[in-house]
Amino acid sequence: MERQAWQEKVHEIIYEADTPAGKLFDLALIASIIISVIAIMLDSIPSINASHGDLLYKVEWAFTVTFTIEYILRIISIKRSRSYIFSFLGIIDLLSILPTYLGLFVTGQGHYLAIVRLFRVLRIFRILKLAQYLKEASILISALHASKRKIFVFFCTVIVLVTILGSIMYIVESSSNPVFKSIPHSIYWAIVTITTVGYGDMAPITGLGRFIAAIVMLLGYAIIAVPSGIITSELTQAVKNQFNNTTSCPSCAHHSHENDAIHCKVCGEKL
Amino acid sequence: MERQAWQEKVHEIIYEADTPAGKLFDLALIASIIISVIAIMLDSIPSINASHGDLLYKVEWAFTVTFTIEYILRIISIKRSRSYIFSFLGIIDLLSILPTYLGLFVTGQGHYLAIVRLFRVLRIFRILKLAQYLKEASILISALHASKRKIFVFFCTVIVLVTILGSIMYIVESSSNPVFKSIPHSIYWAIVTITTVGYGDMAPITGLGRFIAAIVMLLGYAIIAVPSGIITSELTQAVKNQFNNTTSCPSCAHHSHENDAIHCKVCGEKL
Amino acid sequence: MERQAWQEKVHEIIYEADTPAGKLFDLALIASIIISVIAIMLDSIPSINASHGDLLYKVEWAFTVTFTIEYILRIISIKRSRSYIFSFLGIIDLLSILPTYLGLFVTGQGHYLAIVRLFRVLRIFRILKLAQYLKEASILISALHASKRKIFVFFCTVIVLVTILGSIMYIVESSSNPVFKSIPHSIYWAIVTITTVGYGDMAPITGLGRFIAAIVMLLGYAIIAVPSGIITSELTQAVKNQFNNTTSCPSCAHHSHENDAIHCKVCGEKL
Amino acid sequence: MERQAWQEKVHEIIYEADTPAGKLFDLALIASIIISVIAIMLDSIPSINASHGDLLYKVEWAFTVTFTIEYILRIISIKRSRSYIFSFLGIIDLLSILPTYLGLFVTGQGHYLAIVRLFRVLRIFRILKLAQYLKEASILISALHASKRKIFVFFCTVIVLVTILGSIMYIVESSSNPVFKSIPHSIYWAIVTITTVGYGDMAPITGLGRFIAAIVMLLGYAIIAVPSGIITSELTQAVKNQFNNTTSCPSCAHHSHENDAIHCKVCGEKL
Repeated sequence: MERQAWQEKVHEIIYEADTPAGKLFDLALIASIIISVIAIMLDSIPSINASHGDLLYKVEWAFTVTFTIEYILRIISIKRSRSYIFSFLGIIDLLSILPTYLGLFVTGQGHYLAIVRLFRVLRIFRILKLAQYLKEASILISALHASKRKIFVFFCTVIVLVTILGSIMYIVESSSNPVFKSIPHSIYWAIVTITTVGYGDMAPITGLGRFIAAIVMLLGYAIIAVPSGIITSELTQAVKNQFNNTTSCPSCAHHSHENDAIHCKVCGEKL
Repeated sequence: MERQAWQEKVHEIIYEADTPAGKLFDLALIASIIISVIAIMLDSIPSINASHGDLLYKVEWAFTVTFTIEYILRIISIKRSRSYIFSFLGIIDLLSILPTYLGLFVTGQGHYLAIVRLFRVLRIFRILKLAQYLKEASILISALHASKRKIFVFFCTVIVLVTILGSIMYIVESSSNPVFKSIPHSIYWAIVTITTVGYGDMAPITGLGRFIAAIVMLLGYAIIAVPSGIITSELTQAVKNQFNNTTSCPSCAHHSHENDAIHCKVCGEKL
Repeated sequence: MERQAWQEKVHEIIYEADTPAGKLFDLALIASIIISVIAIMLDSIPSINASHGDLLYKVEWAFTVTFTIEYILRIISIKRSRSYIFSFLGIIDLLSILPTYLGLFVTGQGHYLAIVRLFRVLRIFRILKLAQYLKEASILISALHASKRKIFVFFCTVIVLVTILGSIMYIVESSSNPVFKSIPHSIYWAIVTITTVGYGDMAPITGLGRFIAAIVMLLGYAIIAVPSGIITSELTQAVKNQFNNTTSCPSCAHHSHENDAIHCKVCGEKL
Repeated sequence: MERQAWQEKVHEIIYEADTPAGKLFDLALIASIIISVIAIMLDSIPSINASHGDLLYKVEWAFTVTFTIEYILRIISIKRSRSYIFSFLGIIDLLSILPTYLGLFVTGQGHYLAIVRLFRVLRIFRILKLAQYLKEASILISALHASKRKIFVFFCTVIVLVTILGSIMYIVESSSNPVFKSIPHSIYWAIVTITTVGYGDMAPITGLGRFIAAIVMLLGYAIIAVPSGIITSELTQAVKNQFNNTTSCPSCAHHSHENDAIHCKVCGEKL
């Protein structure tokens, strides 16, 4: 089957963001996603569901039909429709519309179907297609990618630490403080404390317990600096790479020239 | 109308900070702003309003009259008064005095007028006119400006994340925990947790809910490192640029050479 | 006694991670550690202990026997068994199995023995033997090592600060707020606040107390940046060193040259 | 009066840390300070004061007499005793001993005198005299010093922000939430929230209030990155300066050589 002119046109509008029509389509899509997500959220509030449930039901159907048409257009306008359908965003696109249709057949579980629909919020990442965000996102992703092993080692350390601190706290507090009623509860407390969240639903009450808690907090203070250091050093590297080219000077072998350099900054030789 | 000597003199005192009189004026202005803001705050405390309300009312009028005179002087001493009046600081200057006059005519809403008056705290940024802070502020602003797209991408990710995490938590907790009563409430919880604020007014009580909460906290731990990394890398760049060579190339007039540049990177001429 | 072939083989599997068998062993070991730690935690929850206590007791014995066999193999397959037994990981390996055997003789204290068993979570650090994490971990450790004195100075400052802030808060709050009942309690509050944990079990209620608390929080805001800065700058240095030129000078054998070095910085010879 | 040999000797022990005796003296001093501070803290706990008050009173007198002898030795062994007495550490040394003597004459206010004694914790900074910490501390101080104006601008911004956010929250919440009872209370809430402390003693309850609170938290998330960025970039600069010398190569004018460089790394010329 040969691709036809209208398919080319639809593909250009839906999949690309270079033409005015394509950019407009992307902005309209992001607006639709945000509005439909807000509608689902409002529908989960009992009082609003009672008063405006019918309206929100209609709004949901309007968006579902629109997204269904968009989904069909995406499939028929792309050359390799199979690779789109099974891509991450393709599956999200399907999950965004399916629950509403399933709601017609399944009763009583509309509750959980609504939640699945919320995953359409992930479609917002289509915004990254817009040229100005693409480069920024790719720098962030490459920095996170480069630091993923350091972060894994860091998380192993934190998990070992909270297990041990939680166990110690369980020994110290459990006899006089009913909230430290098991080791998993105490580990939960250690995580809440070391990440500086501090709900206050669990807090030590014995003198020794508070002393240990103070050490955990000061430890958390130093530890929070580690992921910050990891990502900052990788990001600084990624930003620097972006601005520098990799040409060496043919005369003096100096490298790390800026991107717009035409002559070597050390010896003046043409690069 | 020709500008007169007294207008020049007033302009120098009010708008510039190079002369002793100008510097004194700026310090007096900042002191007045701070005192008048504190007076408005105290007036909002019921017990102080009851005992010292009359005094604070007089203080407010004294500052309003002073700021009105200053506002008029600013308008008549500047060449292009229109551009001042409609500038950001010009509007803030007007909003600082208007509510007190409006309070004479409007009754019963003095409450809200007081709040508008508080926006005069923004006038404190006039301190940036003082030479020693101007450069520092401009470095901070340029770093934030350079990182605004990365921060936008970051915030999109955080919003998608809290939406999904909030929804999952709603499914897990809502049946046994009355505080997770709707999806927006659960998303509010996710934001409170991932930013490590942790009020404790909403906290999971089921085992699975606490397990998910622990993951959200550890995630927040790693995520908080990202804006830190973004701003640090841009700020390091901005600080470095500040120290950069300001020499222009004698041959092609190109500037912004790196510190260790010996030859112009554009034309190869010795700097 | 001469080392035999089977000892060599066992040593290769247990202590090294280069062969497929060695890698498989490491992954199986880490899985066993995680499962056995989860089993101990579950056993500490009263309701689960009541319903599945027997099963968990059998699981614990299965893992203890497995770890005992592994411990014996580690001792007999290594050349210097003494240095293994008294190494940090060797002691942890012994502590992982001993409590279960002791539990046969000691009664009523199984509670505390369970906690000691939890220290086997430290064995997870054997994962660092896997080549891809070894380098990352060593960079993190070297950065922490390089910054240990700065962090010590930082912690001294924080401890002096919380002592003084806690004392001031005690004077201000103790007469009207029963939670600030002694100086150690007030210092505990200062630590909870300056690290931004904020449980809320102790909070100021007087106007002056809240004003001081606000200053403590803003101070904590600036202070949390210091360890972050310390570790980031050392980590950036450590990452940079990692990429540094590994060429030795052909003339004087000096190494650790910077990346852009063309001549040896010690003797001037061309690299 | 000529300085005598014993004065020289005492000066060497007390004021310097190069000799074994001097180092021992410093360690003994730091131990005494820590123990005496712990004694004062314990004495403020009512139950301990009741049971061990007499012992702690004797301990306090023992330390006071020791510190008094040390204070007198410091004065008579130094050349310019006046400049020591009025130095920061000299005043702290006096404040450490005075309250105990005053307690003999003043009755009923021992409470507050105890607090003043706690300021002796500041004497711990004498530890910085130890050579290995001196350099680290000076790097940290120089980085903080270099960033003081940026941090001032940052704090002005935060104060303006919390004033405005607190005022908005007061309008939104005060009618339905009794904890937001005045503007200063609402500003206190904004500080607690934006610094991510989050006690939970004040939390929004209206939908709009929670929405604004979520924005404040996300704002705080980005804002906390700013001081981190400021201090990191200055600290990186300070650490780098420490390792680099400022000599330019006489042949090729390349600068930023490492401290141990003898030859230019670019052209091999002797530096």
